[in-house]
Amino acid sequence: MTAEIDEQPAILDALVGRRSEFAEVAAAIARRPPRFVLLAARGSSDHAALYAKYLVEVVLGLPAGLVSPSTATLYGARPDLRDVLLITVSQSGGSPDLVEVTETARAQGALTVSVSNTPGSPLAAASELAVDIGAGTEHAVAATKTYGATLMALYLLVDAVRGGHGEHAAGIGELARAALDSPGVERAVDRYRFVDRVLTTGRGYSYATALEAALKLAETSYLAARAYSGADLLHGPVAAVDSETAVLAVTSEGRGGAAMHEVLAAVGGRGADILAVGSAAAKAPAAVRIDVPRTVEELAPILEILPIQRLALGLALARGGDPDNPRGLLKVTRTR
Amino acid sequence: MTAEIDEQPAILDALVGRRSEFAEVAAAIARRPPRFVLLAARGSSDHAALYAKYLVEVVLGLPAGLVSPSTATLYGARPDLRDVLLITVSQSGGSPDLVEVTETARAQGALTVSVSNTPGSPLAAASELAVDIGAGTEHAVAATKTYGATLMALYLLVDAVRGGHGEHAAGIGELARAALDSPGVERAVDRYRFVDRVLTTGRGYSYATALEAALKLAETSYLAARAYSGADLLHGPVAAVDSETAVLAVTSEGRGGAAMHEVLAAVGGRGADILAVGSAAAKAPAAVRIDVPRTVEELAPILEILPIQRLALGLALARGGDPDNPRGLLKVTRTR
Repeated sequence: MTAEIDEQPAILDALVGRRSEFAEVAAAIARRPPRFVLLAARGSSDHAALYAKYLVEVVLGLPAGLVSPSTATLYGARPDLRDVLLITVSQSGGSPDLVEVTETARAQGALTVSVSNTPGSPLAAASELAVDIGAGTEHAVAATKTYGATLMALYLLVDAVRGGHGEHAAGIGELARAALDSPGVERAVDRYRFVDRVLTTGRGYSYATALEAALKLAETSYLAARAYSGADLLHGPVAAVDSETAVLAVTSEGRGGAAMHEVLAAVGGRGADILAVGSAAAKAPAAVRIDVPRTVEELAPILEILPIQRLALGLALARGGDPDNPRGLLKVTRTR
Repeated sequence: MTAEIDEQPAILDALVGRRSEFAEVAAAIARRPPRFVLLAARGSSDHAALYAKYLVEVVLGLPAGLVSPSTATLYGARPDLRDVLLITVSQSGGSPDLVEVTETARAQGALTVSVSNTPGSPLAAASELAVDIGAGTEHAVAATKTYGATLMALYLLVDAVRGGHGEHAAGIGELARAALDSPGVERAVDRYRFVDRVLTTGRGYSYATALEAALKLAETSYLAARAYSGADLLHGPVAAVDSETAVLAVTSEGRGGAAMHEVLAAVGGRGADILAVGSAAAKAPAAVRIDVPRTVEELAPILEILPIQRLALGLALARGGDPDNPRGLLKVTRTR
């Protein structure tokens, strides 16, 4: 897991260098311009899909939705999907439910594109267009480099559809290296070695980071970590926050981070122990801060997750776990 | 909270009796037939919106998505929403972000319908069509009767759009009374009086029940309850399940409940203490069972949540809380 986390700067740079491939996929999409975008994924990939949903809505100005695969696989729903672009996200490309969702959507008129780490996968074969995230084989059960690479590929895909060439992502590898070396990680591992209650939160693009952070902590450190968007947190779950709660708050420069101020005030006012992660962490009222280099806001989640992966790894080791082989998990989970 | 939970059978019956109102709204929708449905909500209403998303996809055969209000309110996204039906769900109808989402969507071409408990609310005023769930004033901070009534109204709305007249919901009040009196509730309050780790799970329509159950337990009993769809649970978070974990599994007759078998086997195999709730609870391998009367599967969430509300109330009282006024919560949360 350590090695795979550290490969990410090079993987991100390599993806940015493949701009002509993304331009080709974007050109194929432009020939069948969608009016709606659907995204389908499971696990970590679902958090990447949520990130892409925000990108599609904000950057492309298209309505988007996350598919509940079970409506097709369990209930046999056969919606009219003309003018729909379906993006499936799966590192293995082997999940039977996503293959079935793709086949169904294609038969119903959707244009289908897969984003996966396995070029010859059943999912890529079932899709008209395929993006290879090029992260190389991932051995650790907990997805790290495939998550970062998936976010990068989804960004470059959306950017290409709007006519960009990844300009804003130039130099992302160097920024990723700095994010991985954020000095706050070690302090956070010490402070949360014995924590029981962890809640993660973010808004806008960074909500995806909060979701992935909670999953990573749950699957490697067996922590009962829950994620909430900052807005949803204030609508109820904040009642469960007290001085025994550690709140990992993702706060980067930009509109999502700015909207976190009232969230931080609410959880801070209830005595929570705040760990701030992001390019605006320095300004946050927090017990521990993990600074992340600043980028355009759309790219922030790609950097924010890196020190969080290190934190999950560090906590797992400190708590006596084996982060490469968490109990009870397989690398590819087959659900329908 | 006790009184409001108990009002639900009568509220549900009254809603079913208003079929001509739902037929009118459905007729207005039929004059502008949507190709895509978006749903926007916060908190408990978001779980009702997820239930409606499944209904729209399965029953109406239309692609659907849950809106992230922040893409409009924080990032100023202005997507093309012609041929889109936007359904907003809010008991108060007063949340500024939903009003802004509605105004934006309407300006972008969407047909807008609000589902709320406040006929003269800003949200109803901003929407072209409005459905009043008719639950009467809710005093307790934790939403109970408005959640049940919202589910019922959304079902009747979708059913009317497909040309139904609520036939399957006839007699729902009597079934609701039986669900509220499920004998397993008292035993569950005893068994989980001292629980620390609770996870809720369900699949298909009943995933909404799992989400609402976790929220209700978190906001009234301050339990660190997390919800996962049964499929997502197997993709990672199952690693955090052990013999110290109570798993509230929603298992009703139908396809969603059938797909829960492998989930129950996985968490049971890790030693979890299972509380099964639903019309198929009797068949589940569980420590405690809360039986719920059988209905068509689409209606199951309306009954499943009732004994869970009683459980949340009972646990809150047993743990010394004040379920009418949970610490740190206001009845109407204003987020943007």
